[in-house]
Amino acid sequence: MVARPGAQSARDPHQMRQLIREGRWTGPTAGAAPGYAQANLVVIPKEHAFDFLLFAQRNPKACPVIDVLEPRRGPVAAPATEPAVAPGADLRTDLPRYRIYRDGEPAGEVTDATPLWRDDMVAFLLGCSFTFENALLKAGVPVRHIEEGRNVPMYVTNRQCRPAGVFAGPMVVSMRPVPADLVAKATAVTAPHTGAHGAPVHAGDPAELGISDLTRPDFGDAVTIRAGEVPVFWACGVTSQAALMGARLPFAITHAPGHMFITDLRDEDLRNQT
Amino acid sequence: MVARPGAQSARDPHQMRQLIREGRWTGPTAGAAPGYAQANLVVIPKEHAFDFLLFAQRNPKACPVIDVLEPRRGPVAAPATEPAVAPGADLRTDLPRYRIYRDGEPAGEVTDATPLWRDDMVAFLLGCSFTFENALLKAGVPVRHIEEGRNVPMYVTNRQCRPAGVFAGPMVVSMRPVPADLVAKATAVTAPHTGAHGAPVHAGDPAELGISDLTRPDFGDAVTIRAGEVPVFWACGVTSQAALMGARLPFAITHAPGHMFITDLRDEDLRNQT
Repeated sequence: MVARPGAQSARDPHQMRQLIREGRWTGPTAGAAPGYAQANLVVIPKEHAFDFLLFAQRNPKACPVIDVLEPRRGPVAAPATEPAVAPGADLRTDLPRYRIYRDGEPAGEVTDATPLWRDDMVAFLLGCSFTFENALLKAGVPVRHIEEGRNVPMYVTNRQCRPAGVFAGPMVVSMRPVPADLVAKATAVTAPHTGAHGAPVHAGDPAELGISDLTRPDFGDAVTIRAGEVPVFWACGVTSQAALMGARLPFAITHAPGHMFITDLRDEDLRNQT
Repeated sequence: MVARPGAQSARDPHQMRQLIREGRWTGPTAGAAPGYAQANLVVIPKEHAFDFLLFAQRNPKACPVIDVLEPRRGPVAAPATEPAVAPGADLRTDLPRYRIYRDGEPAGEVTDATPLWRDDMVAFLLGCSFTFENALLKAGVPVRHIEEGRNVPMYVTNRQCRPAGVFAGPMVVSMRPVPADLVAKATAVTAPHTGAHGAPVHAGDPAELGISDLTRPDFGDAVTIRAGEVPVFWACGVTSQAALMGARLPFAITHAPGHMFITDLRDEDLRNQT
């Protein structure tokens, strides 16, 4: 069974991860476990972990780091797969869909990454804009891809990230159509969530970001833009996948775009800290 | 000549770095180039750079990352020593005093680190609380160590950092005595400077932090605490030096406590970003 986004929205993170682990939810996670923070996953060999962490550090709008799981130290190397932000979870099984990269190219998708996970892998969890969608909805701002039961549309832009080591590439953004009179509210609601991309990077003409056709997203699904609505763009964690492709890493595992890891953090936990 | 803190406070960052480079300023930097962000320096072999960056990432109150300079890539390895936050500067010469660590132990101080800088070194600049002292002064909050021409007092606490790889250790704090009726103002003024340790971690009884005697700081100088003043504690970048010592790295270079790198960033650049 492939569940639709929003269909089981009353479930908590633990229940959602259990459904996913059992293969009973393989779809996108927007709208699932509302109120809880969701995360992008990037899993790479330790050899490149410094460069990647530095890339994330230098591009915090697109790649806000929530958690990093390094291989356990000791006589026997072993990967760490239970994140501090979700005790009892297993990153190898608890995402609905994974994308495999070989030599920088997508090389298939799986729903269980256990057989592919190597002992030298470091796993990064990066903030995701699904985290603030519950806050948008509560503020009366519509979230079209949830309404339409689709994956969020994502686009490669003409904005370049700050490079770090082998990693470089364009910023990827997610887009939500927002009624013109609610753009300021959408900005105010999302800005404090700095751990989940924060304020939009752009509102209005997609050509300013080098996006020529909103009906053809680079990742995810197109959504309806109604009269009087403005396309609003937020930095997206899939930026990290563009950087992986550019670096042509021999091997990497990520979530499939829109198919996130659901943490036990509340969405407000990714707001500004003092 | 060893200049006293505050003595040349009207100079800008470029002038200050020039004075320092020429050996004409070898003292602490509190009060120097007011309005500009200052930074802790940690320089370690690339082998340990991932662990250290992860340690900083996991302990952002104590170790907020401002900039990282990795060795230049290419046919000939070369260290990068000109930070993006201070064009024209050289990290090997532009701090008033450096501390050398060998096998985790302090092994002397120098005023020019050029002969010691290896091609495989990665340099980290971390936020420093000197950054918000100008804002405190402008808000009418006294800064005692500037008044008294001393280095800020710093103390090792009983609070443990989140470990990362080989790095672990206690949080180190800086202390400023604040009149009781200004503690709230001092908190409000510093809280937004998340890139420079942000809000205090504690105000009041030092025993709560495991500090037994404020007149004997672990780093820097003791300052006068007047009747009616409360000791207020902020996380301090020297936390990173405690972690270096714990990790017993074969070799590392840092600033000498209180002898910071002065950047071209304005202090407000280290405030919360959306």
